[in-house]
Amino acid sequence: MEIKIQKRVLEANETQAQKNRQYFNDQNVFVMNMMSSPGSGKTQTLCKTLTKLMPALRVGVIVGDICTSNDADRLAVTGVKVTQINTDQFGGDCHLGASLILNSAQALDCRDLDLLIVENIGNLVCPAEFDIGEDVRVVVLSVTEGEDKPLKYPLMFRVADAAILNKIDLLPYLDFDAPLAVENMKTVHPQLPVFELSAKTGAGFDPWIEWIRIKVFEKTGR
Amino acid sequence: MEIKIQKRVLEANETQAQKNRQYFNDQNVFVMNMMSSPGSGKTQTLCKTLTKLMPALRVGVIVGDICTSNDADRLAVTGVKVTQINTDQFGGDCHLGASLILNSAQALDCRDLDLLIVENIGNLVCPAEFDIGEDVRVVVLSVTEGEDKPLKYPLMFRVADAAILNKIDLLPYLDFDAPLAVENMKTVHPQLPVFELSAKTGAGFDPWIEWIRIKVFEKTGR
Repeated sequence: MEIKIQKRVLEANETQAQKNRQYFNDQNVFVMNMMSSPGSGKTQTLCKTLTKLMPALRVGVIVGDICTSNDADRLAVTGVKVTQINTDQFGGDCHLGASLILNSAQALDCRDLDLLIVENIGNLVCPAEFDIGEDVRVVVLSVTEGEDKPLKYPLMFRVADAAILNKIDLLPYLDFDAPLAVENMKTVHPQLPVFELSAKTGAGFDPWIEWIRIKVFEKTGR
Repeated sequence: MEIKIQKRVLEANETQAQKNRQYFNDQNVFVMNMMSSPGSGKTQTLCKTLTKLMPALRVGVIVGDICTSNDADRLAVTGVKVTQINTDQFGGDCHLGASLILNSAQALDCRDLDLLIVENIGNLVCPAEFDIGEDVRVVVLSVTEGEDKPLKYPLMFRVADAAILNKIDLLPYLDFDAPLAVENMKTVHPQLPVFELSAKTGAGFDPWIEWIRIKVFEKTGR
């Protein structure tokens, strides 16, 4: 019974996601959905990413959390246009559904943006099931989480268009086999581009930034 | 609409959880539900915990994952009776529902157990909403995840009976304020006992082991 209910929720979400996609295409804005476990470093990665993309690209961010505006506050320091969604008023949802995204996107006025980034709620399971009308999905895994996570949470890595392996500055202090982690990602999704970087030190950012720039240009011509 | 559907799912779960609780009481077994984000170190914490509790206590473990039997394989090395639930055959569920638990518990033959531990699916959101008929809930947070997680995912810390702050061996290499993390937990749940430990080195385990022993004795007399 629970599975049937899930299907109905997902179908309603898919219908809204198609509307979102149409809106984003009409506004000629590229949309990136960033997902990960809690604490993988999405916000710090975004902060560093924004300082490298702006002002050449005009960027907006929608941040999802169950509670608090901590992440939006941290991102606002970069000067980016940012809006926070708190899902506690919607039953404490564990993901951002397509219906929550459109209003926030309209509030940001996408006509003035080249790139809209959605920082999803920290959860390696549910957000992967909810299309929000994005152009690409990026999953962030930190080296403290264990090499086996792509095998244990395969849907997230299967639906991703790119993966970030974050916190590589901690590798000397961990029993973490980075090549094995990448191999496990490729087992689930053979063509997945993987960017190994440290949001703390800035190491490894150049290929990641280049990947975004190319993707935005391919859609928007900017 | 989505919130209404969630309520129906939760009500059905609650009914089954009451049946589970009756079964566990009839068998006089103490049940502990362990929850956390992916990669916080639940399995390694459990392995070390088991070696300290057994054979004085007779322990069984139910491990939940969407895919793989990696965690059950790691736990089996300790000699514990372990059974794996994979939710991919149930729609890839992001939590262990009460209905999945009873069959697995019966397969383990709880009459021969003092303590049944459920290692839930790695997810700091959804498992907190699903009562499985357990006696206590324990949340594991690792020091790599950031101090603000109790404020951002308050339900998990509110429903917990104890919290573990894991991977304290990594503190010298992180900008992590452990007292602030504990303070944030207490903001959400003032009476929450917090055990700071390292599943890797074994530091800090004694008070945690003592807490379990007292809890098991209080219910079972063993």
